Amino acid sequence: MVIGRVVGSVVATQKNESFVGSKMLLVQPLDLDGNDYGQEILAIDTQDAGPGDIVLVVSEGNSARQAMGKSDAPVDSVIIGVVDTIRVSRHGEGR
Amino acid sequence: MVIGRVVGSVVATQKNESFVGSKMLLVQPLDLDGNDYGQEILAIDTQDAGPGDIVLVVSEGNSARQAMGKSDAPVDSVIIGVVDTIRVSRHGEGR
Amino acid sequence: MVIGRVVGSVVATQKNESFVGSKMLLVQPLDLDGNDYGQEILAIDTQDAGPGDIVLVVSEGNSARQAMGKSDAPVDSVIIGVVDTIRVSRHGEGR
Amino acid sequence: MVIGRVVGSVVATQKNESFVGSKMLLVQPLDLDGNDYGQEILAIDTQDAGPGDIVLVVSEGNSARQAMGKSDAPVDSVIIGVVDTIRVSRHGEGR
Amino acid sequence: MVIGRVVGSVVATQKNESFVGSKMLLVQPLDLDGNDYGQEILAIDTQDAGPGDIVLVVSEGNSARQAMGKSDAPVDSVIIGVVDTIRVSRHGEGR
Repeated sequence: MVIGRVVGSVVATQKNESFVGSKMLLVQPLDLDGNDYGQEILAIDTQDAGPGDIVLVVSEGNSARQAMGKSDAPVDSVIIGVVDTIRVSRHGEGR
Repeated sequence: MVIGRVVGSVVATQKNESFVGSKMLLVQPLDLDGNDYGQEILAIDTQDAGPGDIVLVVSEGNSARQAMGKSDAPVDSVIIGVVDTIRVSRHGEGR
Repeated sequence: MVIGRVVGSVVATQKNESFVGSKMLLVQPLDLDGNDYGQEILAIDTQDAGPGDIVLVVSEGNSARQAMGKSDAPVDSVIIGVVDTIRVSRHGEGR
Repeated sequence: MVIGRVVGSVVATQKNESFVGSKMLLVQPLDLDGNDYGQEILAIDTQDAGPGDIVLVVSEGNSARQAMGKSDAPVDSVIIGVVDTIRVSRHGEGR
Repeated sequence: MVIGRVVGSVVATQKNESFVGSKMLLVQPLDLDGNDYGQEILAIDTQDAGPGDIVLVVSEGNSARQAMGKSDAPVDSVIIGVVDTIRVSRHGEGR
């Protein structure tokens, strides 16, 4: 799973029928310091997330289908939570 | 899922029989600013996409088989939509 | 599988119901010299690990579901062990 | 799927029994300009490919097992076609 | 699949029960020139490999479970062969 910020959305009229009614959000992965890294992920939203939200994204096909509740959807990434708090305890000093 | 632009196609006479009649397109991944990143992906087209189209690509085996409607195809990437609009709202300013 | 150090945790009230009661830990991958590499992984803990522990993380959906004991969880990374010792024998000199 | 050139082969006497009788080829991924990128992939050949051939490689477990016709082989990469032509139409100018 | 050299091992007393009795080896990926690349992979050994051996590693969950003979193990990487010979024929000159 990765943590990221919702930075946009995508509209596609012509698409696989499994996606009808699903919201597709763009998520920018973030590191522990809150900095961007890597490329945006396009994920199906199952948590009513919106722009600016910090979310949890799972990138695995069966996970995505189960979270969407559609066993035959061709999908590989899904938002499965909205983050409240990230607690960092680097180099073991926090235990 | 990734967003990309169709930049070419591949012809292969000698291939697994599951691919007979399928169109194989080369897709260049794009970031939110519309710039290229990473390597081209070779994906099976299920949306009648063509050169220049901005498309959605899912890279996962079961997804690809379901979108193709062939449960035993050895395939890992498929075009599942054509993008109309990408709406960007960076750093949360859009909410 | 990767080896990493637990460097934090994440709290998410709004999430997929499969995650209720599960601890989500942030793990920094480590190389053989004990140096950090790559981005942190967010993994479900099944080994009662804590900050500073050196752990084994499996990143695969079916593995994660089996280790959690939840066959329908949308999850792709899980902590499946706590490391006691790493024995290095580089360039074959150790055999 | 990736496009690559066959650049070698591997012989392993001691191996999982599913691989007995299978040819293991090394494939160097190529970009659209025909330049090498990334690391070689070791893939099972199902298309009677040889050194210098430009091939299609699928990297996904179920795909590889189906193309090999062995439902219990521990394999993740397989050659599923030999390329005749790559047609490039960059930046949409080709439509 | 990747080719690599066994460079170490890991001991973990506290772990998922599927791993009891399994040897966990660290494998450094190698390119065709025998140079290291990327990070070490932690893989379950099914071939009685040891330090310095050049091995074949499959990184896919179902493959790993089948090679281990444990259908419910949370595992994603496994050693499935020991390499005798790597034959390189670059740029097609070998055919």
